Amino acid sequence: MQSVTDIILTGDRTTGKLHLGHYIGSLRSRTELQHEYRTFIILADVQALTTHFDHPDVLATSVRQVALDYLAAGIDPNQATLFIQSMIPEIAELAQYFSMFVTVNSLRHNPTVKNEAQQRGGQDMYYGFLGYPVSQAADIAICKATLVPAGDDQIPHIEQARKIVRRFNELYRPVLPEPRILQGGRLTGLDGNSKMSKSLDNALYLDSSAEEVSTKLVRAKTDPARIRKHDPGHPDICPVYEYHRYFRQDDMSDIHEQCSKGAIGCTDCKRLAAHAVNMLLEPMRERRHAFAARMGDVDEILIEGTRKARTTARETMSEVRDAMGIGYFRR
Amino acid sequence: MQSVTDIILTGDRTTGKLHLGHYIGSLRSRTELQHEYRTFIILADVQALTTHFDHPDVLATSVRQVALDYLAAGIDPNQATLFIQSMIPEIAELAQYFSMFVTVNSLRHNPTVKNEAQQRGGQDMYYGFLGYPVSQAADIAICKATLVPAGDDQIPHIEQARKIVRRFNELYRPVLPEPRILQGGRLTGLDGNSKMSKSLDNALYLDSSAEEVSTKLVRAKTDPARIRKHDPGHPDICPVYEYHRYFRQDDMSDIHEQCSKGAIGCTDCKRLAAHAVNMLLEPMRERRHAFAARMGDVDEILIEGTRKARTTARETMSEVRDAMGIGYFRR
Repeated sequence: MQSVTDIILTGDRTTGKLHLGHYIGSLRSRTELQHEYRTFIILADVQALTTHFDHPDVLATSVRQVALDYLAAGIDPNQATLFIQSMIPEIAELAQYFSMFVTVNSLRHNPTVKNEAQQRGGQDMYYGFLGYPVSQAADIAICKATLVPAGDDQIPHIEQARKIVRRFNELYRPVLPEPRILQGGRLTGLDGNSKMSKSLDNALYLDSSAEEVSTKLVRAKTDPARIRKHDPGHPDICPVYEYHRYFRQDDMSDIHEQCSKGAIGCTDCKRLAAHAVNMLLEPMRERRHAFAARMGDVDEILIEGTRKARTTARETMSEVRDAMGIGYFRR
Repeated sequence: MQSVTDIILTGDRTTGKLHLGHYIGSLRSRTELQHEYRTFIILADVQALTTHFDHPDVLATSVRQVALDYLAAGIDPNQATLFIQSMIPEIAELAQYFSMFVTVNSLRHNPTVKNEAQQRGGQDMYYGFLGYPVSQAADIAICKATLVPAGDDQIPHIEQARKIVRRFNELYRPVLPEPRILQGGRLTGLDGNSKMSKSLDNALYLDSSAEEVSTKLVRAKTDPARIRKHDPGHPDICPVYEYHRYFRQDDMSDIHEQCSKGAIGCTDCKRLAAHAVNMLLEPMRERRHAFAARMGDVDEILIEGTRKARTTARETMSEVRDAMGIGYFRR
């Protein structure tokens, strides 16, 4: 699906530290793709405000936490451009132009907006929250990104971003590429809930210690039909087997077979899964430790990445304004 | 109502040239206030897009037309700061922060939004159109304006701007002043419609020649009860008498009396009104002529005003970010 000229934009709302669900959804593929494509990674602190406008004090911490998570996970600041959304006003500017031709109903009917609105008890929506897809389309378009590695909950947003960009190109001039999603996996939570999520308190964080991983995994939900150790298990519906699948480097067929036969108990299986997760996290811990010791450098990485992204953003806005015929004083 | 420390923000959407309704609604008072207060005048080309997104090509012309109208009307670029909305992305940035805590319903219930939506046949609203009051609140707040000379159709917008600014100050820190409206008059259209308006095709434009003023005024609606020349008229409900009231420099009691007694005919009365309007417009014609001969200088006035306004906008945004706790790398 990818082409050599693809440009990648991906990122996360900075509402707290990242977990293995983020890793499987998109972060893992970013660490690979950054070596092949021009990659922008957005720390979406403005979008964090859609839910955190009444306590924005968490953002200063979260921005740095998420940056550390990225660097620990293997994002190389010499390969990928890490940038902070709120420091690029051109994104708000582009979103404002998009908002002129996006209807309120098309936003209301966006399944992700609808779903999140329902989760909040259907109360009166905030204007900025309703405009989330417009804002996200601007994040993508300002980088002229063509490929967005993201979890499946992002499909409606990327679809809407495509429509917005297409409409812009029809109305004015075709200067913005239509983005495609590069769909990542979805990781089941420790409680068996279909999505690992901070708000459901069922997550394994990227900054967990080895002990935390073991302790949390020991308590993870498994196949509910399996009660005694020698009962045959159903690995395909067991979250812990899912962790084996995602995180073990070697062949997992033995686990599947032994679980199905009741030859391995859940406790042993969880211990092996914890080991696999820790094998993944151990090099991250080392990198995190190194970066955390020089947070001034992390700030510099963000400042420099934002500076680079802003140059791109300004170039895009210059083309956008010309396409719209509102670059009045260009000489 | 004004205080010595007041800062003024006012302006117009750049959808075409201005008419006497704009003059009475706000432009007249601007030409006076500019000498007493720090005055910002916005050429609202972004807000023009709420209705003109599908033909933005008119903007480049309209921006200069409106600028000429201002300068002709007596706005002094050494006193007032004329600036172009689209060239200050910080306005979109501030609007974006406001949009996080403004509910969709409060925008839907804004009488001006409601009214304009109905005029367009209740079709699905555009997101940017719905957000007009948020954008206008940002225009005002970015200049830290305290006083907004505007027509009475703007009352709901200014009221909403007050609420938005108050909420910002409560949530974060009180850095933005609450604006007040300085209400201008409302001028009846030539067709007797209660509002002079370009879309109703009942306007007398500021750039009209003396002949155009006379020709248009001759056809103006008058008191419909008055059929024959010697019928007694009702000047208080006659648009032409309203023009006398607004535009004659001298005493009008004679017109009121003579009309009421049927002692002056409508044609003579209109001729006198046309004369009064032309007395107002004549010095404007001279100034317009002078500026139109050096449009490069007009561009320079806009570029320089925008540069000054942007400096103010950046200062405000720096305070806004600090108040919100998102000025991450301030040293």
